[in-house]
Amino acid sequence: MTQWKLTLSYDGTSFHGWQVQPGLATIQGRLAQAIEQITGETTLPQGSGRTDAGVHALAQVASVGIKASIPAANFLRALNSNLPPSIRVTAAEAVSENFHARYGAVRKTYEYRIFERRERAGSEGRVCSPFLAPYVWDCRWPVDFDRLQGAASRLVGEHDFASFAASDPDRTTRTDPPGEASGTVRTVFFSAWTRGEDTLVYRVIGNGFLHHMVRNIVGTMVDVGRGSLEPSDIDRILAARDRTAAGPTAPASGLFLVSIEYPESPGKATFEHNEEQP
Amino acid sequence: MTQWKLTLSYDGTSFHGWQVQPGLATIQGRLAQAIEQITGETTLPQGSGRTDAGVHALAQVASVGIKASIPAANFLRALNSNLPPSIRVTAAEAVSENFHARYGAVRKTYEYRIFERRERAGSEGRVCSPFLAPYVWDCRWPVDFDRLQGAASRLVGEHDFASFAASDPDRTTRTDPPGEASGTVRTVFFSAWTRGEDTLVYRVIGNGFLHHMVRNIVGTMVDVGRGSLEPSDIDRILAARDRTAAGPTAPASGLFLVSIEYPESPGKATFEHNEEQP
Repeated sequence: MTQWKLTLSYDGTSFHGWQVQPGLATIQGRLAQAIEQITGETTLPQGSGRTDAGVHALAQVASVGIKASIPAANFLRALNSNLPPSIRVTAAEAVSENFHARYGAVRKTYEYRIFERRERAGSEGRVCSPFLAPYVWDCRWPVDFDRLQGAASRLVGEHDFASFAASDPDRTTRTDPPGEASGTVRTVFFSAWTRGEDTLVYRVIGNGFLHHMVRNIVGTMVDVGRGSLEPSDIDRILAARDRTAAGPTAPASGLFLVSIEYPESPGKATFEHNEEQP
Repeated sequence: MTQWKLTLSYDGTSFHGWQVQPGLATIQGRLAQAIEQITGETTLPQGSGRTDAGVHALAQVASVGIKASIPAANFLRALNSNLPPSIRVTAAEAVSENFHARYGAVRKTYEYRIFERRERAGSEGRVCSPFLAPYVWDCRWPVDFDRLQGAASRLVGEHDFASFAASDPDRTTRTDPPGEASGTVRTVFFSAWTRGEDTLVYRVIGNGFLHHMVRNIVGTMVDVGRGSLEPSDIDRILAARDRTAAGPTAPASGLFLVSIEYPESPGKATFEHNEEQP
C-alpha cells in the first residue's frame, strides 16, 4: 500500500462540489473513478476540505492509499488521461503512510475575485466578459476599496467566526481538520484586498475555515464597501457569534482554494508537472 | 422600425453554436429570446456568420430590426440582464436600415490557440490548466514553431480553399456573405503564428471563410508542425481542391471569432460599454 499526496486544480463550474454525491458529478467522485479505472481499486480520496458547488481550486490536496505499485510519473499521466480537462492533477507524490490531506493541513489560502463594473451615475459601466464571469462575482454595486480594506484588516487574528459560518449546524465545522481548531474559533493570519485590472481580489490565509466562511466574510465586506455597513461593524458582527448578524453569502463562482500547507514536506518520490526527469 | 447592430462576446463551450436549433441552447436562440423578453417582438437576429458548437467569439456582430423605440444604453443593459453571463452584448448601435451583419462584412479575423505542452523525451511536459482547457487545443504532439509559420505564410493571397472546406456540400459556403466571394475562392490577407507564454496563437484575416476552414487549416498546419507534412505540402493541398488532401479538423475549443469589419461605420447612435454618457 502506497500513500499518495495528489495536488489538483479544477474549474468547479460544472461540478456539484468536492464531495461524492450519488448521481452527481463531483471532484472526489471523478477522482475515485479515475483511480478505479487505472488500478481497479475502490478508494475514497480524502481532500484537505470540501469545496462547494461552483468553487474552484488552484491546488487542492487529496490523500489516498493505493495497493498497486505505480511510478509517480505514470500515475500522474494516467490520472490526467482518465479525468475530464476541467480537473487536472498537477503533482503526484508518494508520501509517508500517516499523511492525511485533511488532518495534516496547517494553513489554507483562499482568494475571492469581484469584477469591478466601475458604474457611475448615468453610465452603464463595464460589461463582465463571458470568459471572466465563471471566475468572479459580477457585483452590481460599486464598492469602495478603502472600506473593503478596512473591513478585511479587522478579521486578522484568533476569533470566534460563528457569525460567518453557514447556519446549518450539521455542516458548520465539518470542512475543517478536527483537533487543530475546535468549535468555531479560527486564526486568520492574513486578510487583505488588492486591485487587479478588472477585479478586486481578496486573499485570506488561516489555520482553517468554517463552512461558507470566506463567502460570508466577502458578502459582509461588500456590504461595508457599498456603504450599508461600516468597517467597525465587523467587530460587532464577530462578537455577536450569530449568522444573522453578518451579511449575505457571496456567490461561489468568485472563490478559489489557492493552496494548502502541511508542517513538513512528506515527500518520498515526487512528480510535478514541468519537472524534468533525471 | 430601428435596425440594430449588436456586438456580442460569448463563451461557446456550453452552446450548440450560433444557429437556432429546436430544443438546443444556441447563441442566436438565446439572443432572440432576450429580445422577445424585452420588446415582445419575435425576431431572428442575423449573425455575420455561424460559429459552430464550442467556438467562442470576442466580437461577433448581429443585425436585427426592432419596432419598439428604445434608447441604445437601455437596450444594451436590458439585453445583458436577459442573457446568461456566457453571452454579453458589448455594444448596441442604431444603424441605417440597410445594414446587414452578414452581407455587409468585408473582413473577418479569427484566432486559434494551441496549448504548448513542450513535451520532451522522458518528460511529461506541462499540464494544461483546467481554466485554459476550454479555450485551447491541448495538443498531444510537440509542434515546431518555424514549420507552423512556414505553412501559415503559404495561405496568404487569393486561393481556392476547397481542400479546407467541410466536406458537407450543403454547408460549405453558407457561413459566408454571398456575392462578395463566390464558390470556394477566398482571399486571406494575414496568416501567422505568435508564441504566447503557454500557447501558440494563429491569427488569420480574410474576406470570408468556408465552413470549418480555420479549423481544417490549423489541423493541417499541426500535421506540418509535428513533421508528418512539409510546409510546401500546403501548395499541393490547395491545388488539389479536395478535402481529403488536407489534415484533420482541429477541435472547436481553440477557435475565437475575433472581429468583423464593415466598409464604413454605419452608426447613428452608439452605446458601447465603458463609454460615459454626456
